[in-house]
Amino acid sequence: MPALNRHGTCRRPPVGLPPLMRIVTFLSDFGARSPYPGAMKGAAAASGSLTFVDISHDVPRHDVRAGAYLLWSAAPAFPRGTVHCAVVDPGVGTSRAALIVTAGGQFLVGPDNGILLPAARRLGGVRVYRLAPAARRTRISDTFHGRDVFAPAAARLATGAEVASLARPVRRFVDLAFPAGRRRGRSLVGMIIWVDAFGNLITTIPGALLPSTRAGGRVTVEAGGGALDATVARTFAQVARGRGLVFVGSDGVIEVAINRGSAADALGAAAGGAVRLRLR
Amino acid sequence: MPALNRHGTCRRPPVGLPPLMRIVTFLSDFGARSPYPGAMKGAAAASGSLTFVDISHDVPRHDVRAGAYLLWSAAPAFPRGTVHCAVVDPGVGTSRAALIVTAGGQFLVGPDNGILLPAARRLGGVRVYRLAPAARRTRISDTFHGRDVFAPAAARLATGAEVASLARPVRRFVDLAFPAGRRRGRSLVGMIIWVDAFGNLITTIPGALLPSTRAGGRVTVEAGGGALDATVARTFAQVARGRGLVFVGSDGVIEVAINRGSAADALGAAAGGAVRLRLR
Amino acid sequence: MPALNRHGTCRRPPVGLPPLMRIVTFLSDFGARSPYPGAMKGAAAASGSLTFVDISHDVPRHDVRAGAYLLWSAAPAFPRGTVHCAVVDPGVGTSRAALIVTAGGQFLVGPDNGILLPAARRLGGVRVYRLAPAARRTRISDTFHGRDVFAPAAARLATGAEVASLARPVRRFVDLAFPAGRRRGRSLVGMIIWVDAFGNLITTIPGALLPSTRAGGRVTVEAGGGALDATVARTFAQVARGRGLVFVGSDGVIEVAINRGSAADALGAAAGGAVRLRLR
Repeated sequence: MPALNRHGTCRRPPVGLPPLMRIVTFLSDFGARSPYPGAMKGAAAASGSLTFVDISHDVPRHDVRAGAYLLWSAAPAFPRGTVHCAVVDPGVGTSRAALIVTAGGQFLVGPDNGILLPAARRLGGVRVYRLAPAARRTRISDTFHGRDVFAPAAARLATGAEVASLARPVRRFVDLAFPAGRRRGRSLVGMIIWVDAFGNLITTIPGALLPSTRAGGRVTVEAGGGALDATVARTFAQVARGRGLVFVGSDGVIEVAINRGSAADALGAAAGGAVRLRLR
Repeated sequence: MPALNRHGTCRRPPVGLPPLMRIVTFLSDFGARSPYPGAMKGAAAASGSLTFVDISHDVPRHDVRAGAYLLWSAAPAFPRGTVHCAVVDPGVGTSRAALIVTAGGQFLVGPDNGILLPAARRLGGVRVYRLAPAARRTRISDTFHGRDVFAPAAARLATGAEVASLARPVRRFVDLAFPAGRRRGRSLVGMIIWVDAFGNLITTIPGALLPSTRAGGRVTVEAGGGALDATVARTFAQVARGRGLVFVGSDGVIEVAINRGSAADALGAAAGGAVRLRLR
Repeated sequence: MPALNRHGTCRRPPVGLPPLMRIVTFLSDFGARSPYPGAMKGAAAASGSLTFVDISHDVPRHDVRAGAYLLWSAAPAFPRGTVHCAVVDPGVGTSRAALIVTAGGQFLVGPDNGILLPAARRLGGVRVYRLAPAARRTRISDTFHGRDVFAPAAARLATGAEVASLARPVRRFVDLAFPAGRRRGRSLVGMIIWVDAFGNLITTIPGALLPSTRAGGRVTVEAGGGALDATVARTFAQVARGRGLVFVGSDGVIEVAINRGSAADALGAAAGGAVRLRLR
């Protein structure tokens, strides 16, 4: 696909520099049997040629923390210039602000309820802007800012609009932090940020705190009022069926699992709760 | 991305006129654990470069009315030129016709069972065409016209084929109407067209019948054999948890809900049933 | 969209030759409420402009045969040049190889566990390559090769990389075959490769073994320890509600169903089991 130079003529793109992909991702709690994810893309399409990627539309209803986790996990895989549109928005129609956050060369657009911040901090170099009313569509519903505010703003950013033309910097915004796990004596302590569909616990404890020299060692996991004996492993295949393991997951944090079982069920643990790994 | 003028040379697209996005949307009852939504896109891709958007593939099996609602809700958000391919098709393999409907600068493709009509009427300027057999692929299965008939026709429309080259106008077709709600004495009456995942009732009563001067007023909602006291509100946040509300939803029609509860369960109401709002 | 010739100048694409669509499809068992399908696309986007199509992310966890079926069913609908990235990968982090398979002008990328082979054989002209470590990203997690190995390789193939630059031919690989059904005396015998959401059985028995001259005839279906009287039909509409039918499905193989019922429940049949059709 030829690129256009400033003189409006065609030229071959430089070798090794792939054609720009204008990506807008979508995240919501609208559900798969809903017209709203499609409507957001329709609204975005008015701004020009874009590539749409769904992160998920199955965020548990109104669960801002869950949405923040999914965005935190997926965003680092995307290239610079990507715009993420995250709409878990129990405050829609109230006076809550609409934000643009820039971080790591990417853009995040969504309500001012904290959903964008964990991902932005992970991307690095966070700047927060409040979307100006002027940048919004003329008619805005009270219940669907995903279609009427966030998707159009995301699309304008993805097609080259300057942040300054849409929003102004703010210092005050609703924050949401995934508190970094840490070492405390002979334990590692942190928070459970997610329980996946298989009952694995994703924690906020950095994998670097579990040195690979410990591979094969034993730990006791305490969470949700229960305790689980687990092996420090690299993959599920290293422990027997039904046995616990802790490992460094693909997002660089410690995860707790039971091979072919549910660590969440065994421990009675849920997202948002504390977790402790007693090293032995 | 440069545009080609009629002389085959490159020119810069006019300022303010974004590059054309050739969008084909898909709607079906095939389900998320099915190879068929993917196969439809594969079949469409033979016609050229397209942007695919899923409306939903979780329409309840064979539920033409539900599919019609989802399309009715999502389609107005899309730009002119969009082609919607809607395949809820219990009559596949029988003699039912395949339709192209044009409305509001968009195209709708699907079986002749009414699924396209509510969306088309909402877009305005409806014209109905019957897909000619000649426009179909050589080999057509008896059970998957989504892949073999509808997706290829949608893709050809999206890549510039004239409707007249694929179909001929018809006057007779299967219709499906969402009867417009209306005022009757001191009540507003209409139909429930959808019950969403949270038990909210989407009705056919135009929001304009509920003047904003009534905000904060009380109504009694009658549906499904039950009755619900509700407040005229703009957002969920305006009523207490567990209390009923009626509001003008993002599609411009009245919706009935219980804040953090299910209006459908409380009333015993289902899609297709009648609803009455007694104003007080 | 103008094509670039070898001199780097613009020319009009030849009539009838649509612009190339660089398609990468994705198949996984990650689930819809997971950040991983999005992350795979983010990783793929680094290679250039692509069109992403989801086959399904709802493959039953670790069910390689189910993933193989979905790919087998969907792949033939896609145009030449399509790259399929299939990640049902219980062996991730072990020494299992990563494969590229070429077949029918398409590419299939995934773990060496058989998931790619049924689709590849159906496409025809199978060649199997082992992904060279050099073609991988610098940092590779132990648990998410979809993002770190398979999606980047798929994207490089889709943007024009030669297979030879990424992988070397191999003769030994894990195979998975859907054994072709066949005639045995007055019966047709085969395997059930899939039970869909409605309890229909998709078998490996070629439709050609059920000549259309048999339309309306009766067969007894034996599977899962049960037996079902069924009519040879072309569509569901040809049998009464609650009655069994066998028909040639959209993939060219025989399917067994009960109109508005579940053949799987009635027979006690499951994917992977044997099926016999006694012709009468």
